[in-house]
Amino acid sequence: MTAPAPTTTIFETMSRLAQETGAINLGQGFPDMPEPPELLAAAAEALLQRSNQYPPMRGLPALRQALVGWYARHQGLPLSEEEVLVTSGATEALAAAILALVQPRDEVILVQPLYDAYLPLVRRAGGLVKLVHCRPPEWRLDPQDIADAISPRTRLLVLNTPNNPTGTCLDRSTLEAIGALCQQHDITLLCDEVWEATLVDGSEHLSALHIPSLRDRTVKVGSAGKIFSLTGWKVGWAIAAPALAQKIAAQHQFLTFTTATPLQHGVAQGLNLPEDWFVTHRQRYAQAKARLVRGLQQAGYVVLPNSGTWFVSVDLAASGLPVDDAQLAQDLVREAGVAAVPVSAFYADTPETGYLRLCFAKGDEVLDEAVARLARYR
Amino acid sequence: MTAPAPTTTIFETMSRLAQETGAINLGQGFPDMPEPPELLAAAAEALLQRSNQYPPMRGLPALRQALVGWYARHQGLPLSEEEVLVTSGATEALAAAILALVQPRDEVILVQPLYDAYLPLVRRAGGLVKLVHCRPPEWRLDPQDIADAISPRTRLLVLNTPNNPTGTCLDRSTLEAIGALCQQHDITLLCDEVWEATLVDGSEHLSALHIPSLRDRTVKVGSAGKIFSLTGWKVGWAIAAPALAQKIAAQHQFLTFTTATPLQHGVAQGLNLPEDWFVTHRQRYAQAKARLVRGLQQAGYVVLPNSGTWFVSVDLAASGLPVDDAQLAQDLVREAGVAAVPVSAFYADTPETGYLRLCFAKGDEVLDEAVARLARYR
Ligand SMILES: CSCCC(=O)C(=O)O
Ligand SMILES: CSCCC(=O)C(=O)O
Repeated sequence: MTAPAPTTTIFETMSRLAQETGAINLGQGFPDMPEPPELLAAAAEALLQRSNQYPPMRGLPALRQALVGWYARHQGLPLSEEEVLVTSGATEALAAAILALVQPRDEVILVQPLYDAYLPLVRRAGGLVKLVHCRPPEWRLDPQDIADAISPRTRLLVLNTPNNPTGTCLDRSTLEAIGALCQQHDITLLCDEVWEATLVDGSEHLSALHIPSLRDRTVKVGSAGKIFSLTGWKVGWAIAAPALAQKIAAQHQFLTFTTATPLQHGVAQGLNLPEDWFVTHRQRYAQAKARLVRGLQQAGYVVLPNSGTWFVSVDLAASGLPVDDAQLAQDLVREAGVAAVPVSAFYADTPETGYLRLCFAKGDEVLDEAVARLARYR
Repeated sequence: MTAPAPTTTIFETMSRLAQETGAINLGQGFPDMPEPPELLAAAAEALLQRSNQYPPMRGLPALRQALVGWYARHQGLPLSEEEVLVTSGATEALAAAILALVQPRDEVILVQPLYDAYLPLVRRAGGLVKLVHCRPPEWRLDPQDIADAISPRTRLLVLNTPNNPTGTCLDRSTLEAIGALCQQHDITLLCDEVWEATLVDGSEHLSALHIPSLRDRTVKVGSAGKIFSLTGWKVGWAIAAPALAQKIAAQHQFLTFTTATPLQHGVAQGLNLPEDWFVTHRQRYAQAKARLVRGLQQAGYVVLPNSGTWFVSVDLAASGLPVDDAQLAQDLVREAGVAAVPVSAFYADTPETGYLRLCFAKGDEVLDEAVARLARYR
């Protein structure tokens, strides 16, 4: 089979459209808030004072150590440096993992709604995709649907928790049921946990690595861009048991070989910041989310509850709006001056069309103006 | 077919060995010389003063414009921004191009000696590799050998000029003959030109894009790390006719999506430096090369002439040394305290074994001490 050439992502398309029309961009997920001065200073210092030559292929020892420490303190996960591979953003971690683990005609189970990189990467690796669906408005994943999708050729399952676009998380019993299936059928789990540090509802992140049956068969993907609100740094990582990490590193070395040295130093210092720094950072996002949700509700929009990410979803039918989300996103950017991302863009087939994703990682005035525009639009 | 898991590169292996043994590292190609303060300052300023969020998927407009200008001024190449795609190092440009252009059972012609990423990438894309050999000591590529390797399934040819490890360049008549073959058989050329700015013998870089028959069927790969001696920045690019660039971008967006924003700003400013900056930068390397070559010759080593890269090769037989280069590299690092890279490591089959590659991009004292150690070893 030949992989179809993928086209420009919905995120970039909406950002361009926002720029062209002068719309407020609540589409692509990037923060428009003050950037952490501690990390900027640390990276600038590394740039000016330290070597800007190749770091080791698996990442700077200082960063790998900092990741081990951060996951121990923040998630109670005991990791070893051998399990950590630094990559050029989480996207590269996904690519390296999929190219390492999927061979032609292997079957891979993906869950919809899904992040746009998964499917083309699996296809390019030669894999055959089976799609499982979560049902709105709770977006619960039924382990039985996973069980039904498993065949003797199933090699990999890709999950995303907290989920983009829905912001919902997989709970322990779901992950445990999935762990049992993975063990029984010898399936590897690729768990995209880039939103792990964005939980603003008081809950704690549950990693697939917390589940004993998944501990040694999971590749966990993380992102400094998401943790520190620096999406342009492109520092990410894959975490997996040593033999699995070694396989992924073998692909990584020929995809990018290494990741920018000064930014690795910056992230290492960021991860070593005291606990209260992360609490404060999270609070700022909790406030932004509350502000957008309150404004939308006052304007008559129905917002689905969720736990994490930088996004909320509007339930179009419940809000008395037309349920063609893709069309509505086009209308909104042109007529209301607000860019959003239709949730149907996260589907490869049989999309749910009644939901619109809005990014709340913006300053107060931006959020207020967006709400005012959306209020006028109704 | 399943791709074999590649192992750690020879470059990193030798660097690790050098560190463990305290040897002088003339193995892996990275400069140990002052880093350009202009670029460090520009990147630090971007980091502190500008957005650190996602740049556009194809790269910052300022960088793509700077590349168009730089290639016009330095190589007389008229490019458009549409032809430029910024990647996370040249390695990612190679990966994106190969994954974009090679489908299962396509044949790909590679030329030995070859850079270590090409072959595993082609295999991972599902391609079948045909190997063509350059013969030492001149490492001339005979277009007839390319012609003999072409079949109806040939889709891609990968060339590297100036060549790593040999430092030799493809001349116009060779590229023209290859262009005619590519045209006749509808073959795309992936031309790795990352060493384009390292010619220290007074010659000018000849790009495959200078050859009319290759102009619209070539993907040219370049590297800021090589041009500016900042190997840890991981900013590279692919240059190709718009339709070809579009295909490569479609892979790039799911391999890394984008490249670190502040470093893109730094490289853009670097490319806009006046011509004499590049002349001075090159002179420093010419001096370092002359110093190492003179020292080696005085110590009785025979060095092959070449034009570019940061490397020279010692002809072992002519130097009266054992011709098992891999063994000699092991002996040298342990007994002489100098790390080098055996040229045989750049072969997938039937290697030439009589040559050792040394990196001269080092300070005077480092080069002098390496020469003294190598002189004592004989
Ligand atoms: C890589 S651009 C997409 C950013 C993002 O995660 C999103 O908007 O969902
Ligand atoms: C990516 S590490 C290799 C650096 C290099 O180009 C070389 O030493 O040949």
